[in-house]
Amino acid sequence: MTKPKLVLIGCGVVGQGLLEIILRKKLDILVVAISDFKKGSICCSDGLSLTKVLDLLKSGKSLEDYSCVDDCCDGELQKGWDAIETIHKCDADIMAEMTYTDIKTGQPATKHIEEALKKGMHVTTSNKGPAALQYNRLSKLAAENGVKFLIEGTVMSGTPVFNLARECLAECKITEVKGILNGTTNYILTKMEQEGWSYLDALAKAQELGYAEADPTADVGGYDALAKVVILSNVLLGGDISPDDVPCEGISKVSLENVKSAAAEGMRYKLIGSTRREGDKIIASVKPAKLPLSDPLTGVNGANNALTFDTDLMGKITIQGAGAGKIETGYSIFVDILNIIR
Amino acid sequence: MTKPKLVLIGCGVVGQGLLEIILRKKLDILVVAISDFKKGSICCSDGLSLTKVLDLLKSGKSLEDYSCVDDCCDGELQKGWDAIETIHKCDADIMAEMTYTDIKTGQPATKHIEEALKKGMHVTTSNKGPAALQYNRLSKLAAENGVKFLIEGTVMSGTPVFNLARECLAECKITEVKGILNGTTNYILTKMEQEGWSYLDALAKAQELGYAEADPTADVGGYDALAKVVILSNVLLGGDISPDDVPCEGISKVSLENVKSAAAEGMRYKLIGSTRREGDKIIASVKPAKLPLSDPLTGVNGANNALTFDTDLMGKITIQGAGAGKIETGYSIFVDILNIIR
Repeated sequence: MTKPKLVLIGCGVVGQGLLEIILRKKLDILVVAISDFKKGSICCSDGLSLTKVLDLLKSGKSLEDYSCVDDCCDGELQKGWDAIETIHKCDADIMAEMTYTDIKTGQPATKHIEEALKKGMHVTTSNKGPAALQYNRLSKLAAENGVKFLIEGTVMSGTPVFNLARECLAECKITEVKGILNGTTNYILTKMEQEGWSYLDALAKAQELGYAEADPTADVGGYDALAKVVILSNVLLGGDISPDDVPCEGISKVSLENVKSAAAEGMRYKLIGSTRREGDKIIASVKPAKLPLSDPLTGVNGANNALTFDTDLMGKITIQGAGAGKIETGYSIFVDILNIIR
Repeated sequence: MTKPKLVLIGCGVVGQGLLEIILRKKLDILVVAISDFKKGSICCSDGLSLTKVLDLLKSGKSLEDYSCVDDCCDGELQKGWDAIETIHKCDADIMAEMTYTDIKTGQPATKHIEEALKKGMHVTTSNKGPAALQYNRLSKLAAENGVKFLIEGTVMSGTPVFNLARECLAECKITEVKGILNGTTNYILTKMEQEGWSYLDALAKAQELGYAEADPTADVGGYDALAKVVILSNVLLGGDISPDDVPCEGISKVSLENVKSAAAEGMRYKLIGSTRREGDKIIASVKPAKLPLSDPLTGVNGANNALTFDTDLMGKITIQGAGAGKIETGYSIFVDILNIIR
């Protein structure tokens, strides 16, 4: 790869975060195509101007209002291709898949990833759907095609999880992974304990701040954390489980009284996703847990996320950082791209 | 490098931890020489039996009681070389420097590292002396000789610090690093707060457990943390400072009353090493600080260490783990070796 070529499938918040970082850090890469089912689709073999693309999107225009400069790509700027057509016809080495997550079907992202891998493109995604439902199959497909399939952003945005395990804990056997994987529920529990708010008041505030969706079920029901627990199980513990294999309980039954009486005992409620290997089996769960204050996870406040890796050589290693955010998730894709091109 | 060759200079606790990990993880490497100023020195160009070496050391014997099998190295097993002679005459690609730390002079480790780098060997060390006093010079010497100079174990043993910054936060600009860098003092402060022990009682218990030396000055005076702050400044912030540039205050003046009244305010005392860049200047210090419980560093209990990186793209990332230990520090050398040979 001389100057690597990148295609973006999906260009919402995360995609725009990625483009901003590529510009800011002057990454020597050509973005040859962007396809977004709402924002339109463009492909220029000489590389798109990211400044122009970001300006268009910021002003609410369609990508298809983009125009190349005169001597660019022999006037062959392509418009209107859908995601699959873009993957097939653009000349990219790397695909960044950043469409919306559908945790029930994993589509259309899984299809996009399959097509890109089969074409011999490296793939990075922050989409939890394909990672939770199809990681082992897609990973095998990547290996068969001699390319990488990286998913740093699927858990804790750009806070290092998979890169940490692979690069910094190399050859350590990870026996258990346990953490706070959802910022919205951690914000709610933190406010209940620290401010004495009721569950419903804390939820309303989380919605007001944009942490929680209008329908908060994915967060408060534990389903977002569940998808991440499945990904951690299959990627870090060599498991082959699906979301249906994991008992999942959210925080909606945790009352202010529960939180207060835990605090009086020197304990703290957290929504914990955990997975460990016992022989051939993976034992995973998502549920509220009352932890002693000596547990590093109790020090994780607000919308932060954290994960404790239990390892054979290094004992317990805990990493804490952002769990979401435009630049933070954009960075997860960026760091995967660096990993691919270096 | 086909089968890489390793020489150990210093084979105390950390060196033996490293050898145990190499055996356990079946790393495909030849340990061709070991030189320890107390335990003797051996060199076999066909590679030493690590099991035999560990058995000798465990039974308190000299390395020079080692014997090769008949057809090994044409009967050319060498004994009695000092460190410098070993570096010059052994045929290693990588040196692991694990002699004792002298934080005033950095010797004899600095000399060992210079000689190895000049000979074109990659170097990994857990020795804080050369890293705190000579990092920039040695790093330049390594670059001039086309080899690596890695120091993961100098801060927080094998808990990822420099590898985390290089591999997992690549292209992030680190603006500040702040943390709990000494396990002994953190143990003492934790026990004062949680058990109500006096400073002297907690220190005595730390000594009983082997956390603190008979002369605890390096720990409680903050000098161990100071060396680490200098290393972090020069390696992660591009500084060029020495220990004399950093104001340093230990924990001996922190009374039980201070700790109790902080707790009553919802605060907690920690010995904090910190460094940040302001324009051309590095602002670094080691001192006890009263932190709000919302700071992730307050969740670090007992002999654990932790570090918060403040970055332009990812905001704050905190990593917590072991700060010392035979296997944990041995692993820091092991992971540096993996980095060199992969």
